[in-house]
Amino acid sequence: MDAYRDLEKIFRRIGALGDAEGILHWDMSVIMPSGGADARAEQLAALKLTNHELLTAPRMADLLHQAEAVPPSADWQAANLREMRRRWRHATSIEAGLVEALSRASSRCEMIWRDARPDGDFAAVSGALGEVLNLVREKAACKAEAFGVLPYEALLDQYEPGIRVTNIDHLFDDLATFLPGFLHNVMEFQARDSGPEALVGPFEVGSQRQLGIDFMSHLGFDFDHGRLDVSLHPFCGGVPDDVRITTRYNEDDFAHSLMGVLHETGHAMYERGLPEAWRLQPVGQARGMTMHESQSLLIEMQVCRGHEFLSFAAPLMRRAFGADGSAWSHENLYRLYTSVRPDFIRVDADEVTYPAHIILRYRLERALIDGDITIADLPSAWNAAMGELLGLTPPSDREGCLQDIHWYDGAFGYFPTYTMGALAAAQIFAAANKQDGEIKPAIGRGDFAPLMRWLRANIHGQASSAGTDDILHGATGEPLGTSAFKAHLQSRYLDRST
Amino acid sequence: MDAYRDLEKIFRRIGALGDAEGILHWDMSVIMPSGGADARAEQLAALKLTNHELLTAPRMADLLHQAEAVPPSADWQAANLREMRRRWRHATSIEAGLVEALSRASSRCEMIWRDARPDGDFAAVSGALGEVLNLVREKAACKAEAFGVLPYEALLDQYEPGIRVTNIDHLFDDLATFLPGFLHNVMEFQARDSGPEALVGPFEVGSQRQLGIDFMSHLGFDFDHGRLDVSLHPFCGGVPDDVRITTRYNEDDFAHSLMGVLHETGHAMYERGLPEAWRLQPVGQARGMTMHESQSLLIEMQVCRGHEFLSFAAPLMRRAFGADGSAWSHENLYRLYTSVRPDFIRVDADEVTYPAHIILRYRLERALIDGDITIADLPSAWNAAMGELLGLTPPSDREGCLQDIHWYDGAFGYFPTYTMGALAAAQIFAAANKQDGEIKPAIGRGDFAPLMRWLRANIHGQASSAGTDDILHGATGEPLGTSAFKAHLQSRYLDRST
Repeated sequence: MDAYRDLEKIFRRIGALGDAEGILHWDMSVIMPSGGADARAEQLAALKLTNHELLTAPRMADLLHQAEAVPPSADWQAANLREMRRRWRHATSIEAGLVEALSRASSRCEMIWRDARPDGDFAAVSGALGEVLNLVREKAACKAEAFGVLPYEALLDQYEPGIRVTNIDHLFDDLATFLPGFLHNVMEFQARDSGPEALVGPFEVGSQRQLGIDFMSHLGFDFDHGRLDVSLHPFCGGVPDDVRITTRYNEDDFAHSLMGVLHETGHAMYERGLPEAWRLQPVGQARGMTMHESQSLLIEMQVCRGHEFLSFAAPLMRRAFGADGSAWSHENLYRLYTSVRPDFIRVDADEVTYPAHIILRYRLERALIDGDITIADLPSAWNAAMGELLGLTPPSDREGCLQDIHWYDGAFGYFPTYTMGALAAAQIFAAANKQDGEIKPAIGRGDFAPLMRWLRANIHGQASSAGTDDILHGATGEPLGTSAFKAHLQSRYLDRST
Repeated sequence: MDAYRDLEKIFRRIGALGDAEGILHWDMSVIMPSGGADARAEQLAALKLTNHELLTAPRMADLLHQAEAVPPSADWQAANLREMRRRWRHATSIEAGLVEALSRASSRCEMIWRDARPDGDFAAVSGALGEVLNLVREKAACKAEAFGVLPYEALLDQYEPGIRVTNIDHLFDDLATFLPGFLHNVMEFQARDSGPEALVGPFEVGSQRQLGIDFMSHLGFDFDHGRLDVSLHPFCGGVPDDVRITTRYNEDDFAHSLMGVLHETGHAMYERGLPEAWRLQPVGQARGMTMHESQSLLIEMQVCRGHEFLSFAAPLMRRAFGADGSAWSHENLYRLYTSVRPDFIRVDADEVTYPAHIILRYRLERALIDGDITIADLPSAWNAAMGELLGLTPPSDREGCLQDIHWYDGAFGYFPTYTMGALAAAQIFAAANKQDGEIKPAIGRGDFAPLMRWLRANIHGQASSAGTDDILHGATGEPLGTSAFKAHLQSRYLDRST
């Protein structure tokens, strides 16, 4: 056990320094004056370098070897050791020079992209993106060798450990077959009446904020262990015992901020529900981005755009804004928050069209990593896929392949987790309701305790003790699939009685 | 130069990790929800441990040796190397076990003190304080050997590098002789009339904050490189390019917060004025606590309680609170902000009686470290000294030896820097005015640029390139003395014409 104990101690420090990074990142996005940027970059780089050195120190290979020879008997410690090995493998599989080159190329490309996007000028950034892609492919090749998987799978593993492309193809091909016809039916269904009434503002920011805080409290968010603030791009940051979510307010449309707050609260409750006894250890971290996104989408999409929540929420919304009238009925709010419209922009997409945006990106980024297409092919390949999946042609690359930061910042392999998260959310919520019939009625009364109890036992409290599919299997009886998601869409969008 | 270059690189990382600590400390005092305390303690401990390991790594002794054998030719780099050696000596002079024992004993003692103080129950904390003192004396003995100075001097060196007790005795004995008679004269002088009119609130917090921001801007504080926030105990934190000061507001008394904001702005301007080219290097840090306190007291005491500032500030204060009448004349404000009254509590003391509080603490803490008195002697020794220096007897230990956190938290050797800072402030401001006759008239117009230009050239920009006395000598023509301070007191408190 000595080697394992030493590893726990080292990883405890790595975890604490990683937490420090988390708070500094939050501060950078929420609090920091602009002139602090260079100093902050130094601080974050020093933390990253220190953690990289701790993780790749020469004695780590020996310690892992020794610990694996006499593995710890507790299940969570054995799982912890597996996660330590995975972290070590990621850290040691690529040279420091490549990490630095990629970091520099990504920063440069992201900066060029910030100017190129508003102009729709893909040519201006394609050279820089080509450099990023070359370095990412180099990284993928190194990691693929270390992990014994395909290069693209090695990139996926950074965000969703252990996932294989055959799994994703299976899920996404099924969705790609199902969704176009389904979308057609939804559009016809929605066209039968005149559509929901719009809510007319302005909606005072103080009232929006208070309403968000009220709903967060109902969901079980503990303000002794977290905060709600404002940032340009909403996110969930901080650390499990001090989890900080952000939003931004628009006086003409409170729902955008409110749904964002509920979404981030889903992320936050996952972090808060990670087992205290495993804090700072690799096994104690969130399982991966699929599970993380499943928790935000479960709260936002499954729960908070559903009838039970909206029947509870409608009177609170009316009171918050001193509003009244038929537009504020829970039935109209439901129709507002479940209206479907194909569009070019992923981040504005509804849950019916969102998967198409992801499938498109998944196919293209995989082809780029595999060398099946080049950067020069990207705009036309994008537009062709957009036509095929959503029947739309972007007016310019601004609404096409320039819209997301991910690739320009070097993040390949992240996109699929959004839609896998949506699938997992539907599957988890269906299983929870099946196992505990009190969950939905309680939500209708603003009581989220039964749901959170179930999530804590079945999802949050599992942390990284097993793989995503194993945790899902334990919680829902099945690995990740599409059936619950499709059933959810059918029921929500084609059955007016629900 | 190779060894020196390596050292610069290592210290750059140490500096960046120290900056990360600075931001996390600020966050802990201003932003953090209470439930984040344990996680934050882990983060700070991990950062401290990492920096201690970097500083005491086996190769550091060799690198310092090699660099000193072929010293860098640039003056600032030679100074940097001296500061590196000093840091290394502090870090390596005591065992890790002693550091940890002292940290644990101090935390425990501070917690007991928090309960004992309101009750005036010195007996409740004397045991814990005894443990702290024993460990501090052990630390002082180790450091004294490493630095070749007296044990108490080795403690002083942590806050005010290179200072000797003969220097302090020389200054403080002079003040102790001068002040009782001077105080007597001031009390008589003040008793000749009915005293200043009080300002009657309430003073709205938003207006207080805006007034503070306005004065900060006039002083040259750049809000692209800093912030003003609220915390229980006001401080100046953050890092030189992102310097964050705090205050707290009282609706009945705006001057307390405002003078605090101006005080912290003095600290902040020093940090902002440290040379950019030396960032993160030891030579680039503030010289020590005497110089730091001189900058806050120069702004608060020398400048902002003076006629020039108050003639500029009075109309802005009236406008901020929509107030008027004779109480708001600049003459009445001047008399309010320079009124003298002996009291038991250091933090509420005026600049005439403040040195007595410090001289008392200096003599007692030195006697404790030297073993001339014991913890059991502290209450009676305190009260005797209070009677001798200010003619007061504290009603209980709450207003006596229990009032300050410093000793209970393990900080011995810090107190003298408050009064050395006050002496330095007077000496620096007098020299600045002598060298540039435009400084005072400009302040009367709300223009602090001439003062800040002079401070940047003569104090801020020197950072740690030389010792405190050398910097003072360069700026004022003399080492630290009492004459400018005494002249300032004479002129401000006994001469109604100034």
